[in-house]
Amino acid sequence: MQIIPYPNRSEWPALLARPTQSMANIEKAVAPILEQVQKEGDAALRALALKFDKIDLTEIAMPPATVAAAEASLTEELKAAIRQAYANIRKFHETQYQPVQKIETMLGVTCWRRSVGIEKVGLYIPGGSAPLFSTVLMLGVPAQLAGCKEIVLCTPSDHPAILYAAQLVGVTKIFRIGGAQAIAAMAYGTESVPKVYKIFGPGNQYVTAAKMLLAKEGVAIDMPAGPSEVAVYADGSAVPAFVAADLLSQAEHGADSQVLLVSTDKKFLASVNITLSTQLEALPRKELARKAIENSKAILVEDEAEAIDLLNEYAAEHLILSVSNAEEICEKIINAGSIFLGNYTPESCGDYASGTNHTLPTNGHARAYSGVSLDSFVKKITVQHITPEGLKALGPTVEAMAEAESLHAHKRAVSLRLSSLK
Amino acid sequence: MQIIPYPNRSEWPALLARPTQSMANIEKAVAPILEQVQKEGDAALRALALKFDKIDLTEIAMPPATVAAAEASLTEELKAAIRQAYANIRKFHETQYQPVQKIETMLGVTCWRRSVGIEKVGLYIPGGSAPLFSTVLMLGVPAQLAGCKEIVLCTPSDHPAILYAAQLVGVTKIFRIGGAQAIAAMAYGTESVPKVYKIFGPGNQYVTAAKMLLAKEGVAIDMPAGPSEVAVYADGSAVPAFVAADLLSQAEHGADSQVLLVSTDKKFLASVNITLSTQLEALPRKELARKAIENSKAILVEDEAEAIDLLNEYAAEHLILSVSNAEEICEKIINAGSIFLGNYTPESCGDYASGTNHTLPTNGHARAYSGVSLDSFVKKITVQHITPEGLKALGPTVEAMAEAESLHAHKRAVSLRLSSLK
Repeated sequence: MQIIPYPNRSEWPALLARPTQSMANIEKAVAPILEQVQKEGDAALRALALKFDKIDLTEIAMPPATVAAAEASLTEELKAAIRQAYANIRKFHETQYQPVQKIETMLGVTCWRRSVGIEKVGLYIPGGSAPLFSTVLMLGVPAQLAGCKEIVLCTPSDHPAILYAAQLVGVTKIFRIGGAQAIAAMAYGTESVPKVYKIFGPGNQYVTAAKMLLAKEGVAIDMPAGPSEVAVYADGSAVPAFVAADLLSQAEHGADSQVLLVSTDKKFLASVNITLSTQLEALPRKELARKAIENSKAILVEDEAEAIDLLNEYAAEHLILSVSNAEEICEKIINAGSIFLGNYTPESCGDYASGTNHTLPTNGHARAYSGVSLDSFVKKITVQHITPEGLKALGPTVEAMAEAESLHAHKRAVSLRLSSLK
Repeated sequence: MQIIPYPNRSEWPALLARPTQSMANIEKAVAPILEQVQKEGDAALRALALKFDKIDLTEIAMPPATVAAAEASLTEELKAAIRQAYANIRKFHETQYQPVQKIETMLGVTCWRRSVGIEKVGLYIPGGSAPLFSTVLMLGVPAQLAGCKEIVLCTPSDHPAILYAAQLVGVTKIFRIGGAQAIAAMAYGTESVPKVYKIFGPGNQYVTAAKMLLAKEGVAIDMPAGPSEVAVYADGSAVPAFVAADLLSQAEHGADSQVLLVSTDKKFLASVNITLSTQLEALPRKELARKAIENSKAILVEDEAEAIDLLNEYAAEHLILSVSNAEEICEKIINAGSIFLGNYTPESCGDYASGTNHTLPTNGHARAYSGVSLDSFVKKITVQHITPEGLKALGPTVEAMAEAESLHAHKRAVSLRLSSLK
């Protein structure tokens, strides 16, 4: 990868910019698909499957026999791994539940929040070469913990690991549909596919465009999606071979993956580059990874403070801190999706099984967005109860403010009650 | 208001539907404004202020002298009310902070979440007849508690109560701009206005369209906006005059406000209608409120279970439970923005000063969205640390899953480390 020594801060925005691409053409292709599914329902899903995927989609639902047969076709090793990942993800997400805490803001004025699972959610898992059963766990576990009553899964893949993971997390319905039309089906509902209230999951540019167009109409989605990315901050305590392996595990996602290495140690950057070349050659996906690495940057910075500023400006989806004072640096990071500390915490552990969620904000969105968590599957409904005494204490404040905002009926709703208490 | 006796469930969707209006024309008007601000910055803001508001915007920032003079021009009564509301909102939102909780998902595998304030946020407060200083508190208090470093306020109003509230919540910069161009300025940044990472606040259809178009590009916003609404569920224990006052306090927001009354008690509905007419006549905004009430519905239902189903299907922004077993019913509500219990808890208390937030999901969005809270102003960054022993325990799980997903570099990042530990 290209080593960039001591860039000026004025050069940072250009160095750290993600490749942008206009979605306008993709949106133009996707908008009619959304409309067709909204108007024609299942018939549209069948017509689009035939058109785009040359598939006869007589059965839109995944056949129950296929689902039932999934477990038997997996090795014991893989099933045990999936169950271990499930247990860890569950353990971590369980602690995110916020119990009801009743707060008396004034005597007789009690306010609280109830966490309630979103009743119907939709998960999308793309087809393609890699069967993303790990994403079924990452989206399904918090949906299950939140108590979502309907968990719909749309996926063009019938890979047994996906179907096995779907059973573990309690998916209630599975449909064999993919692409923008699957997203539309969950947003609008069809004869077969229930309309859901929030849609989650990765996908290609058509899927992403469908989610963003629907979000503009008010459909809730997990977050804006973009190519995956990692930033590594390393010092002399880091192991070049480990760092190279972490960079490559990001790079193998695709040629558009973003990889950034930051260090104050010039020799270290050179060492990483050497082991990177060797490791690259041994990878089955080496052509993809090579392109990503060629577009990536190793940035040499003056000192720790500059490194922290640069990492906060980049706002990486994944940030690996392979430095001796990783916990201390971590506290100074304000923009990142997920942070990995030390030499023995590779990103791939978080991608699969340590317990944290792997659905994270890319493309700098970590400045404002969090990754998926239990929070993503619950609504927090506020509740309040005011006693007559409480209203006597609070009422005059509300009356004064409503009067000043010229909202007289708001004032009257209080005054009328106060009069009745005299 | 129109009383609808015992509608069939098949009629509910039509009865509960909010009026929809196409945003296509508004989006067409707004898109060029966004583009102009992105390209021309401050010059665009000045040109648009002249064009739309006939204002010479030489100074884009609110003059410091105007801000400083605000407090002196307010009555002691109003200032005390604003301070009391500030204290209550602060007290309630403070409890929403989630402390760090380190979870060992397996021995040596520790995961946690850090809550970090979004560095730069933008608040929008519209101009117009009602100076919404209460919204400054509702958005500003959680921003302040979250530790947002830059809190930008854009408002075409220089009402002293807005400026006073802005000082209380620690707004860092105020700009005298409004409309879609103010939203664009905060999304893209101009020479004067800092680019922020998340945009909050109400506004007209142009403001709403600007927020939704920017959300499609990935800019974070609070939530989709729509006309305000209340649903009241009342039984014989409710006071018709109080219920009528609550319905009117929603109706006075505008002719498009949504008001719904639900009861199992036919006589009660008739009593509300009588007192409603009397109260309406005494309101300064009676013409607006009358239109809203004329479009509103009082629905007579068979029993409590049917009422709960109907309220959950409607998913009201505000839900008042004026029934003797309000707490019990509350537990069965799964879709609502904020719930008010009993006879002495008018919505207007939550609108201003009880402590809960008044920025809530309208238009049925309560099915998937929560109201604004401290959560809206923080990101939760996940962190993990794995010891060599932890990696030995977790590693084989990650290796098996990465292998099954054909992500060999992900597997290698673990294998390489495990080899070094042998």
